[in-house]
Amino acid sequence: MAVNLYDAAYELEKAIRQSDEFRRLKQVYDAVNADDSARRMFENFRNIQMNLQQKQMMGQEISHEEVDQAQKSVALVQQHPTISKLMEAEQRMGMVIGELNQLIMKPLEELYGNPTGR
Amino acid sequence: MAVNLYDAAYELEKAIRQSDEFRRLKQVYDAVNADDSARRMFENFRNIQMNLQQKQMMGQEISHEEVDQAQKSVALVQQHPTISKLMEAEQRMGMVIGELNQLIMKPLEELYGNPTGR
Ligand SMILES: [Ca+2]
Ligand SMILES: [Ca+2]
Repeated sequence: MAVNLYDAAYELEKAIRQSDEFRRLKQVYDAVNADDSARRMFENFRNIQMNLQQKQMMGQEISHEEVDQAQKSVALVQQHPTISKLMEAEQRMGMVIGELNQLIMKPLEELYGNPTGR
Repeated sequence: MAVNLYDAAYELEKAIRQSDEFRRLKQVYDAVNADDSARRMFENFRNIQMNLQQKQMMGQEISHEEVDQAQKSVALVQQHPTISKLMEAEQRMGMVIGELNQLIMKPLEELYGNPTGR
């Protein structure tokens, strides 16, 4: 990778670290992890979500009990003041990353969508 | 998205466009598309590949004939002087994009891999 490309990527990484969205995410992530009960509740929620996603991807059946358990864990974390803030911050950060990826992929999309000599 | 984040992403996009890897890719991509026979051969190869990938993802069976056809189309494009250069350029560009994505995801990976208060 050429120097100016690496420099530009490094500057972007720095801008991400300094962005409001990342600072906010770090703040609420640390708050959740500093609180044992919140951390366990969030880890439990994450495990349930990942387990369901894996089953869906592998085409395995999901039982009524599992759907119930998942809905309850979503309701729990949504009502938790710190965890709900973390999930909101993750969503915002995810949108930023999505926009950045779109920008980075723009040259390629233009090239493949619009060949010069066709 | 904040202004400095957007600026940094825009600078990176510009650096990608000006990179040797992207210029080279555009050059050989245009060369393939300017040559009707090469373009058709490459499109045929791409269609076969995408078709196989879709079948794999959906867990569908792939016949011996399809495997045969895919291997033949790979051999054809690898021997084609312009198309083989395009595939090489795509691979290099893909590696650059992969490195850029890794850099951009570094702040998040550090955060999630290493919570401060745990
Ligand atoms: Ca072209
Ligand atoms: Ca923490």
